[in-house]
Amino acid sequence: MPAASTALPVRHVAIVGLGLIGGSIARGLRHAGYDGALLGLVADAQDAERALALELVDRASDNPEQILAAAELIVVAVPIGVMDRVFTDIARLAPATAVLTDVGSSKSSVIQTARDNMPARMARFVPGHPISGTERGGLESGFAGLFDSRRVILTPTVDTTPDAMAVVAQLWRLLGAQVSVMDAMHHDDVLAATSHLPHVLAYTLVDTLAGMSERQEIFDYAAGGFRDFTRIASSDPMLWRDIVCSNRAPVLAVLDRFIEQLSEVRQVIADDDRDTLAAGFTRAKQARDQFAARFQERRHGRTTV
Amino acid sequence: MPAASTALPVRHVAIVGLGLIGGSIARGLRHAGYDGALLGLVADAQDAERALALELVDRASDNPEQILAAAELIVVAVPIGVMDRVFTDIARLAPATAVLTDVGSSKSSVIQTARDNMPARMARFVPGHPISGTERGGLESGFAGLFDSRRVILTPTVDTTPDAMAVVAQLWRLLGAQVSVMDAMHHDDVLAATSHLPHVLAYTLVDTLAGMSERQEIFDYAAGGFRDFTRIASSDPMLWRDIVCSNRAPVLAVLDRFIEQLSEVRQVIADDDRDTLAAGFTRAKQARDQFAARFQERRHGRTTV
Repeated sequence: MPAASTALPVRHVAIVGLGLIGGSIARGLRHAGYDGALLGLVADAQDAERALALELVDRASDNPEQILAAAELIVVAVPIGVMDRVFTDIARLAPATAVLTDVGSSKSSVIQTARDNMPARMARFVPGHPISGTERGGLESGFAGLFDSRRVILTPTVDTTPDAMAVVAQLWRLLGAQVSVMDAMHHDDVLAATSHLPHVLAYTLVDTLAGMSERQEIFDYAAGGFRDFTRIASSDPMLWRDIVCSNRAPVLAVLDRFIEQLSEVRQVIADDDRDTLAAGFTRAKQARDQFAARFQERRHGRTTV
Repeated sequence: MPAASTALPVRHVAIVGLGLIGGSIARGLRHAGYDGALLGLVADAQDAERALALELVDRASDNPEQILAAAELIVVAVPIGVMDRVFTDIARLAPATAVLTDVGSSKSSVIQTARDNMPARMARFVPGHPISGTERGGLESGFAGLFDSRRVILTPTVDTTPDAMAVVAQLWRLLGAQVSVMDAMHHDDVLAATSHLPHVLAYTLVDTLAGMSERQEIFDYAAGGFRDFTRIASSDPMLWRDIVCSNRAPVLAVLDRFIEQLSEVRQVIADDDRDTLAAGFTRAKQARDQFAARFQERRHGRTTV
C-alpha cells in the first residue's frame, strides 16, 4: 500500500449506502487506521441493524437527519437511480461546510442531478468514480482492500473548490487508490467503452443464448471462457440499467461503432476472408496482452490476468 | 477425481501436438498412473528436445514415422488448420488397428477433413472435444488437472466402431473428465454459441477499442470486469481464426441472432425504454447465475465463479 497519512481532516464521515462500494470504503477507512466517526445511512431499520452487527460503521440509521446533520464528509454510494433523493436530503440537512462526493459510474448525469437537487452545494461537491467492483453487492459484500492500487477518477465541476478536492483525494489515497482527475464528459466516453458497453454485450449475449431452443445444453456445455466472459452479466440489472441510461449518448456512440465493426467481421467470416479475420484477431490479442501486462503492473503483480 | 481404472487397453499412446491440450493429456495420463509408453509428435527437433526435457513424454520426435508406426492410440491435438496433414500421415504410417481421436473445437469440419485424408481409418476414428482450456498455449502450458471434472464431447460418425469409442471414452475418464456423446452438427451449434461467438465478440470489442482515438486512456482505465470479459481475446489468433472458419455456418447463425438482438437493445437504449432494458438485463442475470451455480456444482465447488 502506498504511504498515506491517516490524517483525514474530518472527524465525521457519513457514507450513504453500505453496499459493495460504501461498505468497502467503511472497512477500508478502519483498516487504514482512520479513527474518526463512521456514520452509515441505509435503506431501512433492518439494514441499519445489520450494518452495526457487521461493524461496518459506528452509527447506522435509515433517518437522513441522524446521519447527515453531523457529517463533515459525505460519500454518496447509492445506485445512480436514487441519487436525486440523497442530494435533496443533503441540501436540506447537511452542514453547509460538508464536503460531498459520490461514486457513480457515469459523471455528467450525476453532476446534472446534483445541480438540480443541491444547487447551493456545488462548491463542496467532488464527483468521483472508483474503477473497481465485482458483480456482487449487498451489506456483506464490502472488503477493506477493494480500492487498493485501483484507480479513482475525480471529475470536478467549474464550481468545485480546491480544498474540497483535496479532502476527497486524501480519502481515496487513504484507501490505497490512485487518484486521477478528468473532465466529466471525457470520463463518460472512456467508461462507456471499457465498462458500460461490455456490460451491455454480456447481458445481451446471455439473454440471446437463453432465448435459444438449445438453451439447456448451451449452458451445460459452457466452460471457463464463457464463465469469465459473462461474469459481469451477474451484476445487479437495475443498477446497470440505470448506469447505461444515465450515460446514454456515449454508450450509443461506442455501441454503434461496435455494431458496425461486428457487422464487418460477420461479412469477413461469411466471405471466408481468412487473412482479414486473422489480422483483426491478431491486433486484438496484441492490444489485450498489452492491457493485461499494464494492468498486472498497476496491481504490483498481485493478481493473474 | 472420479474412480477410474488405470487400465487403458493400449501400451503405446501417441500424442500429436504437445501444446496446452496435448501436454495436459500427457501429464494427466502420468498423473493417473498410466504406465504405458507416451510418444509425442511435435513440429521440430527443438520442440522434441524441450518436450523430453519437460518430461512430457517418453519419446518425442518431429518424424511422424518414428511416433505413429508403433501407436495403438493416437490423439491428434494440433490446431484445426493443420489436421489434414496429420490425418494424411496417419493414413500412411499408423497401424490399421490404431484407435484415433482428436480434440478439435469444431467437429463436422474435422470429420470431413478426416474423410478426405484418411478414408480407410474412419471405423477407428472417434472425433472428440474437451471443453476446457485457457488462453495460454505452448509446450510449457499443459498441466495434469486440466480435464478434471470437465466435459468432453465425443461425436462418433456412422462408421465409428463401439470398441474404438470405448478406448477413447476410457482415456478421458482416466483424465477425470465427464464424457458425453453428441451428434457432430449439434455439437457445432452448441459450441458456436458458448465458445466461438464469445471469442469473436471479445476479439472484436478489443479491436474496436484499440482503433479509437482514446485508445490509451481506454485501456489505462479498464479494470477487472474488462479484464475478465476480454481474457479470451488473448487466445491464439490463428488457432481461433481457423476454428471460426471451420464452423462457419453455425457461427454465422448465432452471430446474426446476436447482432439482431443487440440492435434491438440499441434501440431500447436510444428510446430510454427503461422497463424493457431492465427486463432483458434481469433475464440475463438469472440465466447467468443459474449457469454459474451449475458450473460450480460440476466442479465440486473447487472454483469461484
